[in-house]
Amino acid sequence: MADLTEMLREPVDVATYLFTRLKQMGIDSVHGLPGDFNLVALDYLEGCGLQWVGNCNELNAGYAADGYARVKGISAIITTFGVGELSLLNATAGRRVTFAEFVPVVHIVGTPSTISQKNGMLLHHTLGNGNFNVFAEMAAHVAVNVAKLKDPRDIASQIDNALRECYLLSRPVYLTLPTDMVKRKVEGQRLKTQLDLSPHKNDPEKEEYVVDVILKYLTAAKNPVILVDSCAIRHRVLPETHELVEKSGLPVFVAPMGKGAVDETLPNFGGIYAGAASNPGVQERVEGADLLLSIGSVKSDFNTAGFSYRTSQLKTIDFHSTYMRVRWSEYPGVGMKGVLRRLIDRLPKLDVQPGPTLQQKQIPEDENPNDTAITHRWFWPRLGQWLRDGDIVLTETGTSNYGIFDTRFPPNVTNISQILWGSIGYATGACQGVALAAKELGGNHRTILFTGDGSFQLTCQEVSTMIRHNLNPIIFIVCNNGYTIERFIHGMEAGYNDIQNWKYKDLVPAFGAAEGSYKTYQVRTKDDIHALFQDETFSKAPCLQLVEMYMPWDDSPAGLSVTAAASARNNAKMLETS
Amino acid sequence: MADLTEMLREPVDVATYLFTRLKQMGIDSVHGLPGDFNLVALDYLEGCGLQWVGNCNELNAGYAADGYARVKGISAIITTFGVGELSLLNATAGRRVTFAEFVPVVHIVGTPSTISQKNGMLLHHTLGNGNFNVFAEMAAHVAVNVAKLKDPRDIASQIDNALRECYLLSRPVYLTLPTDMVKRKVEGQRLKTQLDLSPHKNDPEKEEYVVDVILKYLTAAKNPVILVDSCAIRHRVLPETHELVEKSGLPVFVAPMGKGAVDETLPNFGGIYAGAASNPGVQERVEGADLLLSIGSVKSDFNTAGFSYRTSQLKTIDFHSTYMRVRWSEYPGVGMKGVLRRLIDRLPKLDVQPGPTLQQKQIPEDENPNDTAITHRWFWPRLGQWLRDGDIVLTETGTSNYGIFDTRFPPNVTNISQILWGSIGYATGACQGVALAAKELGGNHRTILFTGDGSFQLTCQEVSTMIRHNLNPIIFIVCNNGYTIERFIHGMEAGYNDIQNWKYKDLVPAFGAAEGSYKTYQVRTKDDIHALFQDETFSKAPCLQLVEMYMPWDDSPAGLSVTAAASARNNAKMLETS
Repeated sequence: MADLTEMLREPVDVATYLFTRLKQMGIDSVHGLPGDFNLVALDYLEGCGLQWVGNCNELNAGYAADGYARVKGISAIITTFGVGELSLLNATAGRRVTFAEFVPVVHIVGTPSTISQKNGMLLHHTLGNGNFNVFAEMAAHVAVNVAKLKDPRDIASQIDNALRECYLLSRPVYLTLPTDMVKRKVEGQRLKTQLDLSPHKNDPEKEEYVVDVILKYLTAAKNPVILVDSCAIRHRVLPETHELVEKSGLPVFVAPMGKGAVDETLPNFGGIYAGAASNPGVQERVEGADLLLSIGSVKSDFNTAGFSYRTSQLKTIDFHSTYMRVRWSEYPGVGMKGVLRRLIDRLPKLDVQPGPTLQQKQIPEDENPNDTAITHRWFWPRLGQWLRDGDIVLTETGTSNYGIFDTRFPPNVTNISQILWGSIGYATGACQGVALAAKELGGNHRTILFTGDGSFQLTCQEVSTMIRHNLNPIIFIVCNNGYTIERFIHGMEAGYNDIQNWKYKDLVPAFGAAEGSYKTYQVRTKDDIHALFQDETFSKAPCLQLVEMYMPWDDSPAGLSVTAAASARNNAKMLETS
Repeated sequence: MADLTEMLREPVDVATYLFTRLKQMGIDSVHGLPGDFNLVALDYLEGCGLQWVGNCNELNAGYAADGYARVKGISAIITTFGVGELSLLNATAGRRVTFAEFVPVVHIVGTPSTISQKNGMLLHHTLGNGNFNVFAEMAAHVAVNVAKLKDPRDIASQIDNALRECYLLSRPVYLTLPTDMVKRKVEGQRLKTQLDLSPHKNDPEKEEYVVDVILKYLTAAKNPVILVDSCAIRHRVLPETHELVEKSGLPVFVAPMGKGAVDETLPNFGGIYAGAASNPGVQERVEGADLLLSIGSVKSDFNTAGFSYRTSQLKTIDFHSTYMRVRWSEYPGVGMKGVLRRLIDRLPKLDVQPGPTLQQKQIPEDENPNDTAITHRWFWPRLGQWLRDGDIVLTETGTSNYGIFDTRFPPNVTNISQILWGSIGYATGACQGVALAAKELGGNHRTILFTGDGSFQLTCQEVSTMIRHNLNPIIFIVCNNGYTIERFIHGMEAGYNDIQNWKYKDLVPAFGAAEGSYKTYQVRTKDDIHALFQDETFSKAPCLQLVEMYMPWDDSPAGLSVTAAASARNNAKMLETS
């Protein structure tokens, strides 16, 4: 092979090329763990303006990168071959999902050198069978692009294609970087042109046709409504969605995974639609509408309270990232971004029948004022009064991501949860990435985590990484003796749903936080909550704060009870033919 | 389909059948985490005499099950579909490995009902694409038997076959148990006959022929030696190996992964052979032998100090579980167990030239008596004096599993480490399973863990599970500010090899240990170590004990330095043609 380096106009090392591209896309910190096959690459981070996070383990790092990407639009994680990347698969799978989650994370795996791989050496971290491809094959199940960097002639294009797909498809990609490729040279002049990340443009004629059809139904409808779900967030159509909601004045609802996508202080915001687990009055209004504009919908079990939607496709217009569907007519290749833009521009004044009067606009009366215990029914509506413009609220799979149904957000509050994949432990790991991303964004974004005691135990050590980077999240741990979501599905009092009870607040100094650099709290009564929410220092989030919030072990938000019962029924269902 | 239940003589539920089989094989505790798709199955454990462990997360549970299996011969773990099982893949892969580790663990995954799977429902924990097989496909890369239990007519046989393969091949198997199969009926009469787990028998004529050949070379050799490696442990030929070593009187050595397989107090035990990282004098003796009897060998990089073996196949007889190799002649289908037995029976008196005088029989002089710091060179030989008959010593990938090269064991000490796969965090998780298994075995087995500070952080929360089950391991955390093994490969002072320093001993009460139910220690000097090892209460292991052992950040055992340098060279190697 001729020495290609001589043909390059501005030779740069492969690692420099890759990391410069990440920086250009808005990444300022890279998550992951060091490992012998990625160490040399890590030397390049600082020179490319990237901070190394250094997580406690790979799964946590994966969750953290997921959280970071949801705030900053994309993230990157570096692990080592085999041991490192496999621990991460759960996190990656949670991001892939064809219909949901959709988080763009670049996973870079440092691998043995191409020569070791060629010779099939019996290296550590291998399966000992000389097959160096097995991990990439496994990753291919959960990544949209697997790029094995092994020939400098292809590497720059491979990187550019993978990063572009990651961003535009909003899904994970997987790159292998062998130790002997790190310092090889590629064409640096390419870096002067940023990657083209502009979204797919619809064919104008098709787009116009679809908008005609939509307007025909919309102007004829008597009581249409809008329903917003998570793909509106992940496929970056929130500006268009907001404009449509405001200009049309139609009643607007969100699915659980779309929580936070709509300004909840708007007069036409009606609350959460989740079939049988909807906010009061919402199910009747949505299912009684004669037209449903459904933006970025994901109809999973936990997003629909066990498939309890009772909407009709004959009354539905579906907006998706790569196609539209009006009643049963599909329009492939016509994406919602362009359609929404054109629809807003052409929107006439509509005949609007308002939604239900939102009970949750006022905090409900305390039904049991003599009971001092903090119940879900009492807590979540009150949380909304304490939240502020710009907050980022993470809610773990469990009581928290159902409780939040009953919290009314101020404007510009983001809610991060993982409803379809539902891997407990996610939220604590993600919190580290979110808090770091919020810090990098600047402005006044508080990061607020709600997790259960059982869930927290899976990934607790990422609190150490938050301490290490001087992050200031507010961590609420719902202390209620175990896996409450599972109790409501099966085994209410079964020992397998119990956990070892920890002294959660003592973990913060044990994880190395210096005295004075953090605060911890225990709240057991409604009065404790009042006092906490009125504490201005607490509310200003000056440092890392952890709150042990004790709630009755057998209490759950209404939305969870409904969904769990549906889940238990579905698990028990026998094949009728048997 | 006709109702098959009526045709069964003693109908038992599928879960009862499966768990009874596990109990029959010697499993008393099952590791794992509850999850909505396995809850109903978990109800059956207690009735079948099985204890539920309830780990903090799935990866840790996988490591714990691995440790438990290494002590009790087999183990089982139950997780839920998708989120649970994927977190476990790293642990499972570490057990598969064609040539190494070889640990028999039964992985049971609770999955959605067969009817949900058939209908491709968009359930939580799925990838949202209706494909319910993707996780099983991923598992198939790292399990020797994937049994999807979905038809009661096949289930009893599927279970029996999988469990038998798990045990006999000493490798992980993977069973999916859909929620609607748990209570289906299978034939219970089968349970009256235990599974036949007797090993494969060689053809006597072939076996006799191979032993003839071995004896021809052995009796002609002038200075033969024996080398024992991990497959001797995993394939259950330690009794035969011990007998051969004693009867032959030949000098015997162990590879790092075989550490503990040979009684180190025997006069003919010569120490560790690991190529350039061998104990003093060992490399010369082994490589100078005119015949090497190599039992259960695994030639991986970390087991051979970076492929620094200089032995010749022309002077080697390899004993393997399914074949023998004498010089270059292979004998497929002739396993070592029968060959060893017959060889011992026919062994004449041999002309033995002794091995090197083991320097390590005496503790080496303290070379720097004025330096109070605990160095690796000083510590590991002294550890041997404190160890006792029956101890089980876990050494984490890093300084510990190299340091142990220099520790001389009393009889019947087991060493557990994961040298080929090398996933840091393993040893702490495994320690929970080992300590539980040791408790179930009875007798006086202390469980002693050596891990690094960086490694401990990956899986620290499993200390909580040890507390929950009143286990009494002794946990040594080598506190030296980071990933020392990586520093020696690359980036000695690089920030990415640093960690957040924790107050490790404060974690024990934070994880819920009641006062008086545990002890913690800090040792910083040689005198501290002397005092600790002389403390009779400490040595009796009356409860969970954690020792922070401070060592210089830039110190490492000799064996690690040699191996790390080889690893760095291999990583840097460029393709010569480029």
